[in-house]
Amino acid sequence: MIRLDGKQTSNEIKEEIKVTVSEMKARGERMPHLAAVLVGNDGASLTYVGSKVRSCEYVGFDSTLIRLEEDITEDALLAQIDTLNKDESLDGYIVQLPLPKHIDEEKILLAIDPKKDVDGFHPANFGRMALELDAFIPATPFGIMQLLERYKVPTSGKHCVVVGRSHIVGRPISILMSQKGPAGNATVTVAHSRTENLAELTRQADIIVMALGIPEYLTADMVKEGAAIIDVGITRVPNESHPKGYVIKGDVAFDEVAQKSSFITPVPGGVGPMTIAMLLKNTLLARQWNLS
Amino acid sequence: MIRLDGKQTSNEIKEEIKVTVSEMKARGERMPHLAAVLVGNDGASLTYVGSKVRSCEYVGFDSTLIRLEEDITEDALLAQIDTLNKDESLDGYIVQLPLPKHIDEEKILLAIDPKKDVDGFHPANFGRMALELDAFIPATPFGIMQLLERYKVPTSGKHCVVVGRSHIVGRPISILMSQKGPAGNATVTVAHSRTENLAELTRQADIIVMALGIPEYLTADMVKEGAAIIDVGITRVPNESHPKGYVIKGDVAFDEVAQKSSFITPVPGGVGPMTIAMLLKNTLLARQWNLS
Repeated sequence: MIRLDGKQTSNEIKEEIKVTVSEMKARGERMPHLAAVLVGNDGASLTYVGSKVRSCEYVGFDSTLIRLEEDITEDALLAQIDTLNKDESLDGYIVQLPLPKHIDEEKILLAIDPKKDVDGFHPANFGRMALELDAFIPATPFGIMQLLERYKVPTSGKHCVVVGRSHIVGRPISILMSQKGPAGNATVTVAHSRTENLAELTRQADIIVMALGIPEYLTADMVKEGAAIIDVGITRVPNESHPKGYVIKGDVAFDEVAQKSSFITPVPGGVGPMTIAMLLKNTLLARQWNLS
Repeated sequence: MIRLDGKQTSNEIKEEIKVTVSEMKARGERMPHLAAVLVGNDGASLTYVGSKVRSCEYVGFDSTLIRLEEDITEDALLAQIDTLNKDESLDGYIVQLPLPKHIDEEKILLAIDPKKDVDGFHPANFGRMALELDAFIPATPFGIMQLLERYKVPTSGKHCVVVGRSHIVGRPISILMSQKGPAGNATVTVAHSRTENLAELTRQADIIVMALGIPEYLTADMVKEGAAIIDVGITRVPNESHPKGYVIKGDVAFDEVAQKSSFITPVPGGVGPMTIAMLLKNTLLARQWNLS
């Protein structure tokens, strides 16, 4: 059994980006520039955004953090988006979610210029990805594809069951793994809450991607010997014996499933750590597409 | 066994549209207006476009046929596209494919304003469909969804195997049937040329959508008793005993598969006739979204 180490892979990707950036610097090119918009003072959001900004600095990108008041109007936020769209010094930007309840998240995301949408949440990017054009792929599926490719998990002709049909994980990963190309050419089934006989399906799968959000849902009896397991679930489960009062659990009962699997991502330390690396990768792509 | 009659269903949809249009007329509203761009003199394309224009007239739409010379430059065609994008009297338009070889088809399709892209080929429409926003759905998958819905083919929780991963049929129908909503909530598998053990998969399927383009590929031994069968294949097979010198064959060995199936689309007369009705439906939607 091989553990797909997201922390290590994420670090490798960051180092690769760092090298590319230093080459760009040597050629006198402008550095890739990412901006992050943070509305309000949510603690978790602050942590995420802070971590993204520090990662930019680490690889040598320019970064800008734009903090806006919790009570900003939707129109004022849209005006800010318009400014960012027009800012030629900026290759990409993200709007940290969730937004305050008085703001229509969909409206904001649709206002982002798809060419700067390095989160890959805009429908124009989703469509370009599905139609196999250059596109920003959302960080989680992009990260999974990198893990599959770098660990050489066999996918071509294999049966992959994706459990979950969300817009940012289940749906895009199912499309990517079914397309031609690295970590692709799989026969992909999308299962979800309405699926009958899920265990019957997962027991046939060569690869299982769990993106359901139910802790330890996938148990050993649902898995074929030698399957590859990708666990996207991250749920805080209350646990009083733990100093934080909770533990992080994936959608996979790790210990029992690991024994039957060929490859498996741990939680934490699997898919999760890949996301910031993929955001950086998208920002670098935005810069490169801008140049060409 | 129930035959899904595309000709009859298509006529029903046209009659429904005709009623809506006459109500719009009674309210003094401008009629939906579709334009078709035809480059060159290809016989088949002329026939298709002619049929689209006549269908517009039948339901009471305004229609415009724009015929351009075979040797038009790409720039001149792009200028024409720009004019159509800006024409406020126009709700939607299509560019009949294929285009002459000296013109980059992708470039032309990307230039169409997604709001007028009633063929649903623009990535912005594909993305909006996948992310469950209002979108123009390409005619073939849209037509299949209508057949499933109107004939009340059970889909929720059922296992559907789509054979073929094309951008305009296999991929979109797999997404639509897997989403919530009418004819949705299926567990969908996308199979393709690289799939191992296809027959093993199709034998498990409650619904099979064949979009491979190989005549009579799906045989009775590949089908479970009681499955619903959607055949998107349309291939001309040479046949000297036929006055035209060919016969039209679907991807399904109809006679033997029909005996085992609960529902089945014939070829011709199944999915094919639905496409023009769905183009009209998209044009009506374009008009309605323009009004609101």
